[in-house]
Amino acid sequence: MNNPQQDIRHTLESYFDRLWPICRSITGNGLRESLKILSEIAPMKLTEIPTGESVFDWIVPKEWNITDAYIITPDGRRVAEFKQNNLHVVNYSIPVDQEMTWDELRTHIHSIPEMPEAIPYITSYYKENWGFCVAHEELVTWPKEGVYRVVIDSQLEAGHLTYGEAVLPGSSDEEILFSTYLCHPSMANNELSGPLAAALIYQAVAAMPERKYTYRFLFAPETIGVIAFLSRYGEELKSKLRAGYVLTCCGDPGGFTYKRSKHRHSLADRAAEHVLSFQNTPHRVIEFAVGGSDERQYCSPGFNLPVGSLMRTPYQQFKEYHTSLDNKSFISFQSLQETVEVYTQIVRTLELNACYVNRIAHCEPQLGKRGLYPSSVDPLFNREETHRLLHFLSFADGENDLIYIASLRQESSLKYESIIRDCRNANLI
Amino acid sequence: MNNPQQDIRHTLESYFDRLWPICRSITGNGLRESLKILSEIAPMKLTEIPTGESVFDWIVPKEWNITDAYIITPDGRRVAEFKQNNLHVVNYSIPVDQEMTWDELRTHIHSIPEMPEAIPYITSYYKENWGFCVAHEELVTWPKEGVYRVVIDSQLEAGHLTYGEAVLPGSSDEEILFSTYLCHPSMANNELSGPLAAALIYQAVAAMPERKYTYRFLFAPETIGVIAFLSRYGEELKSKLRAGYVLTCCGDPGGFTYKRSKHRHSLADRAAEHVLSFQNTPHRVIEFAVGGSDERQYCSPGFNLPVGSLMRTPYQQFKEYHTSLDNKSFISFQSLQETVEVYTQIVRTLELNACYVNRIAHCEPQLGKRGLYPSSVDPLFNREETHRLLHFLSFADGENDLIYIASLRQESSLKYESIIRDCRNANLI
Amino acid sequence: MNNPQQDIRHTLESYFDRLWPICRSITGNGLRESLKILSEIAPMKLTEIPTGESVFDWIVPKEWNITDAYIITPDGRRVAEFKQNNLHVVNYSIPVDQEMTWDELRTHIHSIPEMPEAIPYITSYYKENWGFCVAHEELVTWPKEGVYRVVIDSQLEAGHLTYGEAVLPGSSDEEILFSTYLCHPSMANNELSGPLAAALIYQAVAAMPERKYTYRFLFAPETIGVIAFLSRYGEELKSKLRAGYVLTCCGDPGGFTYKRSKHRHSLADRAAEHVLSFQNTPHRVIEFAVGGSDERQYCSPGFNLPVGSLMRTPYQQFKEYHTSLDNKSFISFQSLQETVEVYTQIVRTLELNACYVNRIAHCEPQLGKRGLYPSSVDPLFNREETHRLLHFLSFADGENDLIYIASLRQESSLKYESIIRDCRNANLI
Repeated sequence: MNNPQQDIRHTLESYFDRLWPICRSITGNGLRESLKILSEIAPMKLTEIPTGESVFDWIVPKEWNITDAYIITPDGRRVAEFKQNNLHVVNYSIPVDQEMTWDELRTHIHSIPEMPEAIPYITSYYKENWGFCVAHEELVTWPKEGVYRVVIDSQLEAGHLTYGEAVLPGSSDEEILFSTYLCHPSMANNELSGPLAAALIYQAVAAMPERKYTYRFLFAPETIGVIAFLSRYGEELKSKLRAGYVLTCCGDPGGFTYKRSKHRHSLADRAAEHVLSFQNTPHRVIEFAVGGSDERQYCSPGFNLPVGSLMRTPYQQFKEYHTSLDNKSFISFQSLQETVEVYTQIVRTLELNACYVNRIAHCEPQLGKRGLYPSSVDPLFNREETHRLLHFLSFADGENDLIYIASLRQESSLKYESIIRDCRNANLI
Repeated sequence: MNNPQQDIRHTLESYFDRLWPICRSITGNGLRESLKILSEIAPMKLTEIPTGESVFDWIVPKEWNITDAYIITPDGRRVAEFKQNNLHVVNYSIPVDQEMTWDELRTHIHSIPEMPEAIPYITSYYKENWGFCVAHEELVTWPKEGVYRVVIDSQLEAGHLTYGEAVLPGSSDEEILFSTYLCHPSMANNELSGPLAAALIYQAVAAMPERKYTYRFLFAPETIGVIAFLSRYGEELKSKLRAGYVLTCCGDPGGFTYKRSKHRHSLADRAAEHVLSFQNTPHRVIEFAVGGSDERQYCSPGFNLPVGSLMRTPYQQFKEYHTSLDNKSFISFQSLQETVEVYTQIVRTLELNACYVNRIAHCEPQLGKRGLYPSSVDPLFNREETHRLLHFLSFADGENDLIYIASLRQESSLKYESIIRDCRNANLI
Repeated sequence: MNNPQQDIRHTLESYFDRLWPICRSITGNGLRESLKILSEIAPMKLTEIPTGESVFDWIVPKEWNITDAYIITPDGRRVAEFKQNNLHVVNYSIPVDQEMTWDELRTHIHSIPEMPEAIPYITSYYKENWGFCVAHEELVTWPKEGVYRVVIDSQLEAGHLTYGEAVLPGSSDEEILFSTYLCHPSMANNELSGPLAAALIYQAVAAMPERKYTYRFLFAPETIGVIAFLSRYGEELKSKLRAGYVLTCCGDPGGFTYKRSKHRHSLADRAAEHVLSFQNTPHRVIEFAVGGSDERQYCSPGFNLPVGSLMRTPYQQFKEYHTSLDNKSFISFQSLQETVEVYTQIVRTLELNACYVNRIAHCEPQLGKRGLYPSSVDPLFNREETHRLLHFLSFADGENDLIYIASLRQESSLKYESIIRDCRNANLI
């Protein structure tokens, strides 16, 4: 039997498996390769910004690429191998090939004593440095005497920073933005869950028969990538953006967390909270705070865009965060697919939402003559639906939007799809 | 002993008994006769609108009158007699005089199996039809074989729709509206309680020595009657109306329910909620919703008037609603009289309410030199009243109205009547 | 060892002991003498307003001075001696020197039967009268027969009403006002606690290396003194005042009570409530009401200034109020010093508060290149402080003030002192 939900989960998993081993960073070929794979689902236009270009207060750094890295212990073991797990090398490490004692090496080695089986994830983008990350339980087996050989075969050179945009035009150029980051090496919830969700939302939006809004999906390295994007498109976005969401931590099995835009009651916030309030999965709403992801850039004072973030368990609130334990077994493809489904409901809500105007403004419309008011002795009589219709028309004054009108009855605005169609057909709106 | 409250209850009951047996509908002589009886208390000007006239989205229907109706069963019993209970015939039934089998008759018979002793109340105003309503416990005794004779001696012809207005002019032409409906046959809470309350409020307002506002009392058939009224007076009402109330379900022994205007904080809402908050009888406040009565017309987008509804138990929330059980034994004349009393307090509150301006705006007035500040060694010293006076003057800045000022001290604005008189006499306001 | 908190308590106590015995009133030499003593801490400019001058709705009364007062009972005892306790004479008593019976005397004697050991505090400023106040337990020993001799050696003559102002200029002429009253004879919480607190706040403000605001400390008789002050300076204050506080009841051991200005969310209210929310001592917030002290004048409709009042237990809520039991043993110098400390924090909060503007408005600033973002591998890394800095810059849009920004993180704005210094040094604001 063909089960569309299972199909979605299989798609998610197969792309996850292809993207997982790639060593991504904020620049470099791992990032480009990942964008190319996701382009199979969400065809993207790539932008390459050269090293040294100023983007607001920042400068695009050198491009980093890496081929291999490892340590040979004094007792001859090859450890901390990049090819075994790309977290083993501090991201953006400069090239190294030298021998040294344990005392020289130790300040370059990172582990987490409280989580002895986890390899930490460490970066040093803006300060030239090198290092290795290892599970603490392995580190304790390393000899303190003798000579270590340390190899990092990386390049840090003038190049480019890359980001990708997939755009689905609508009947207006008002935009809805989905922004996700692609810059962490092998990590699951705090990396691949976001781009995978974005790609599947792209598919769902592409399949819609018509679209009022233009949808932009941004796949960019966190922070510097979004700053670069905003340096090119930010002013246009300020005039066009109606709602946006940062996708991250979309795949763990926890409940939903919606983090509001700084504005607190933007359309992005209202649509997301409206949809969440009708889900069975528990959810909570938190206010904007700078700790987090790229909402920090979108909501900076110079932009203050209506961008929130619907997640499951937020960054730093799960212990696997930024370690090798944030892996495939930590996430659930069913959770990830449910997140995609909720985002899709948000899209449908945004598309349906409007400040409709009831043309029969004075007193209630005579529904009977339009065949919209079944007699109370009619077996087809649906009091609930008739009330909903009258409720909608009573509040459809051109100032209340549908989200507000539906919320007055504590029900999803998606329940008004057929009513709005009927009203259009009867020339009532 | 002369007890004015008992007098009011006796008045209510005697008018109830005269109005009860009349078969009212949205048009016809039963409606006219009822208006004439109520005119004894609240003298009305009647308006007759001809069949076929367009009133906004509606058309005034044919006028309906009925003389008799009954069914003769195959075993010779005369049942569902109109003269025994006017609910027995579907309101607005077309004339019928024919013989038929049970199978032909059955779709025209209405009963409530779950309430076997109740006759339901059914109408078919805008779709020509006929029918009978009977207690289910009676219906089950009717034979399924043989020939029934069915008689409805009614007329459905070009005529008029009638409504009545009683107006008490005030010193300004700003208006307070009391709107109630008169179109149901023998029903108590969901029919007669409203017009009876309106008539007695009229009496109370008429007895006031002076009035700031003009008071309009509308007695009209529900929906179409108010739509017709608004088609003639709606635009004027938009400029003149300060507060209005729909009177319905005023007589059952339940607590009070105040249903807000769509505006939510209109003067109508603020005055009603203020008065209710100082009653001993429990009350609750609900938001505007289209389910209900004529507030739906007043609050339609084209008018959006400040009209709420103070009821006891609302329509559809008591099981007797729209059945023969909504009768004299269901209501309480003491409850009805208490509803009249609360509405009268609302009137007094509206009359007293204003944005008074303290002429001594800078620092507190010296009350002592005006004889308004008894010394603390004076045996007549009333600290409470002095505080109330200073409180009033401190907030009387021309922007805060009395309802707001009194509410700050959690007390009824009617407690300020003597203070306002004193301040006027002392030229303080 | 030098303990500055103990020093403050010793200062408070020594001034308390000097001020306690003086018989103050709303005019007179006791008031002048008290102002002179407080001038040692907070140097004041005195204003003398002549008897008979109109101040808004009031007239400055005659000046009252008193030398002695007592009663000689028929059995030869000298009782109700002014020199023993200046509460014994009704404040503003006219001169008396006559003999009379108990029946003639009794209406001039005040006591509190429910508090037999307490001498009540009674005044008669605006109605010429005389009287004595005595402990009820003493009163019951007085004979009902025989001749009493009554002596009040007072003068009620044309003179002046006096108030004092101590001003500490700041870099702008926007003002912060501390207003306290000085008109009660020997009373502790409801008299001396206010001026003593004001004088010590003056000292703390004077010691600040720089001041943005100009600070005005008013020491005036309650009601008439503040009305006189406002009649001269009120209009200027309306344009200059940013926040003000009435100091009274600052010394009892109860928790804090903050009484809001009439505006409810003025800067005075926001600063006081913000500071209180981070104290260990319990506190509550109450709304403006006319019962109370001089906030009634400042918040009168013609001024409506941002003036609240931070107290401990408010007037009338402690049973010792307006009796001889409101004395040194009722208050605590530790409580009084803590009140001074909280007011000083309010001053620091007001000085630090501003709507700062982040110059790097678009996206987050690159903190690393300014040395403000320690690497995550840096042992000095303080995630909390870095988050606070980014939070501050994200919200510093020129519209949010620091109190708001700090409150978003539920922390004191005083925690941002070093961040703001760093941002200034880095030219970020």
